Amino acid sequence: MQPYTEMSTEELQALRKKLSSHYREFQVKDLRLDMSRGKPSAEQLDLSMGMMDVLSSEDDLTCEDGTDCRNYGVLTGIKEAKELIGDMMEVNPENIIIYGNSSLNVMFDTIARSMTHGVMGCTPWCKLDKVKFLCPVPGYDRHFAITEYFGIEMINVPMDENGPDMDMVEQLVASDDTIKGIWCVPKYSNPTGTSYSDATVRRFARLKPAAPDFRIYWDNAYGVHHLYDHDQDHLIEILAECKRAGAPDLVYKFSSTSKISFPGSGIAAIATSHNNLEDIEKQLKFQTIGHDKVNQLRHVRFFGDIHGMCEHMRLHADVMRPKFEAVTSILERELGGLEIASWTSPKGGYFISFDSLDGCAKSIVARCKKAGLIITGAGATYPYGRDPHDSNIRIAPSYPPLGDLVVAMELFALCVKIVSIDKILAERK
Amino acid sequence: MQPYTEMSTEELQALRKKLSSHYREFQVKDLRLDMSRGKPSAEQLDLSMGMMDVLSSEDDLTCEDGTDCRNYGVLTGIKEAKELIGDMMEVNPENIIIYGNSSLNVMFDTIARSMTHGVMGCTPWCKLDKVKFLCPVPGYDRHFAITEYFGIEMINVPMDENGPDMDMVEQLVASDDTIKGIWCVPKYSNPTGTSYSDATVRRFARLKPAAPDFRIYWDNAYGVHHLYDHDQDHLIEILAECKRAGAPDLVYKFSSTSKISFPGSGIAAIATSHNNLEDIEKQLKFQTIGHDKVNQLRHVRFFGDIHGMCEHMRLHADVMRPKFEAVTSILERELGGLEIASWTSPKGGYFISFDSLDGCAKSIVARCKKAGLIITGAGATYPYGRDPHDSNIRIAPSYPPLGDLVVAMELFALCVKIVSIDKILAERK
Repeated sequence: MQPYTEMSTEELQALRKKLSSHYREFQVKDLRLDMSRGKPSAEQLDLSMGMMDVLSSEDDLTCEDGTDCRNYGVLTGIKEAKELIGDMMEVNPENIIIYGNSSLNVMFDTIARSMTHGVMGCTPWCKLDKVKFLCPVPGYDRHFAITEYFGIEMINVPMDENGPDMDMVEQLVASDDTIKGIWCVPKYSNPTGTSYSDATVRRFARLKPAAPDFRIYWDNAYGVHHLYDHDQDHLIEILAECKRAGAPDLVYKFSSTSKISFPGSGIAAIATSHNNLEDIEKQLKFQTIGHDKVNQLRHVRFFGDIHGMCEHMRLHADVMRPKFEAVTSILERELGGLEIASWTSPKGGYFISFDSLDGCAKSIVARCKKAGLIITGAGATYPYGRDPHDSNIRIAPSYPPLGDLVVAMELFALCVKIVSIDKILAERK
Repeated sequence: MQPYTEMSTEELQALRKKLSSHYREFQVKDLRLDMSRGKPSAEQLDLSMGMMDVLSSEDDLTCEDGTDCRNYGVLTGIKEAKELIGDMMEVNPENIIIYGNSSLNVMFDTIARSMTHGVMGCTPWCKLDKVKFLCPVPGYDRHFAITEYFGIEMINVPMDENGPDMDMVEQLVASDDTIKGIWCVPKYSNPTGTSYSDATVRRFARLKPAAPDFRIYWDNAYGVHHLYDHDQDHLIEILAECKRAGAPDLVYKFSSTSKISFPGSGIAAIATSHNNLEDIEKQLKFQTIGHDKVNQLRHVRFFGDIHGMCEHMRLHADVMRPKFEAVTSILERELGGLEIASWTSPKGGYFISFDSLDGCAKSIVARCKKAGLIITGAGATYPYGRDPHDSNIRIAPSYPPLGDLVVAMELFALCVKIVSIDKILAERK
């Protein structure tokens, strides 16, 4: 394919006409396609329907230690669930608190607690003039929304294929004690699909933050969410690495089964050092008597153990893999060589990150919408919704059926072409 | 029975000896009885086991409006659940947000949000020098624990058979704008079992607080938890009353199904005005994508409607009623006429409130413990754990089987007698 910039103005204008007519064909189809969020498809949800049968009225809902899961109590989660989630999170079950249905809620509460009560005896953030967070970009919009909600200033840190720019991270956290945290999705990152390199994880564990209450917010949302059986990314386990580096309290690790069992009806957890756990439990005991133990037991009985969970994730992969491959192959077929875009090809997770020419992302998203395709808003992958290059778009292939996805991506590629031509032509004027 | 104070010192000393020998008989029994918390009994939990069967892998987990309960979304709860819980809370479903498994958690989050972001545009409490709450006493220890955790100063307001001392409440909230709330358990109150009179509820709705961000924290935990079919307390619905009084935003009403379905695996809710809901949702959308809709659907399918729930509560009542009656009849038989104690005889809820002679409660609880009976710590029903009279003890009859409960109450009455005699004799010296 000839790069667009090497085409003459006349060629581009002719192509633009052809593409416009193609676009109008899409418009009359009255499409209603939603790729805005990383939601599992109905086909994936069907995989977990057995969850509904593992506990019946004939079953004993008692834990191995005699706890009646139906009654009050057990603040930090039942032992069996800690073992399962411990294996999932690659940490000792004793380093875990099991929460309710949402790891986002755990992260929100972690920030809220730091605001009102501080971290391990440090000044509550609400008493400080300024609190800042580092935000690797592009990143997860709901992370940025939490910090923005609490008035925390966000500083962009660029991501590359190894993770965040660690020179910048090291320098900033060492020199500025108002920096209290960094949001990370270290494996199959949202949205790039990048997994942090070994060197990156080691450098994280060896950070020397100026603030004693600085923590790494390690949202390992896609720890077991591989697309392939063998070609999988591997991440150094951060709690163990921090311990080895002599900084066991440096990290909060979050995870959930939302994209393993059911979104909204899974179980979430935090894994962290004993000091941090103690600090958290001081608050948690006032917030609740305990989370949903019946649902914890349901997960344990359904998955059995981590092997059962991994086998289950292979079934998810069988649904997800063709979708990811459809997206990247359509992008390659339609946009390859045109030099107007680049995109990632992750081996897991829920997203593909797409970069258009600078200044085109908003127009592409708007043009998709006019033809009935909703994609994640341009800018959403940046703090305050401000992508300084207006180029990044998060593609979420999971939700639509494969047939719809193919249509959606063809429309998307078409919009990319049209908007890119418009930009190139405008620049030539 | 002759009042103890009318007995001679010699008579009391002789009785004391007899009672001591009786107490030693209890001690050798090596009892392990726990009446510390308002936990449903296993027999009650068995009533809800059908919950485990209402959703199976063959069922469609779709709402009437097409929402797939298995997936992400629906921040404020599914429509069907709002209807069921609306009927339970006696409010319009549109005034409800359905939460996770714990109304305590909803209350905690309500206070936390007020601390960091304020109420409907008012200054966040963390920016104020002083925040105070009114606490009707005796009351619920976990309420007081939340306000204490957030550094909120608590002011005791005495309860009588009509509810809190409303003269005091009216005067305080009108004159002091640092008073931001009052904790209420308006029906079958914890621990007295009192239901607020119509006049009390009307006066609540007509409060003229100096603070615009003052709210009534109306924890209607026992709204449908009657002991009798006909002899039931009725409470004026507070949201409607506030609306009629021209102050629709004055109240947050909390409830849950914890003591209806399963404690820890129920669904909780807040009911309040549209202005307050809007204020809450501004925060909630950052905290979570949504609560457990599958569990909401499970509740809807199990109970069907409010009639189904009320029928279910009759089964709970059949288990609870004999326990409440056992407690009051043993207290009457053992302590009636001795003029050393008084207690309540509620028609619902989970507790009986017991008042000993001043200065005896701690000793009674300690003496029970030495013979193997754990009851709620003396002082727990007061803010900061400080009962100024050291006289109130919360009796929680629900958890032990009836046979154990009888033994426990006989031991309890014995301890009350011994401690009371010791006090009377000490005063005569």
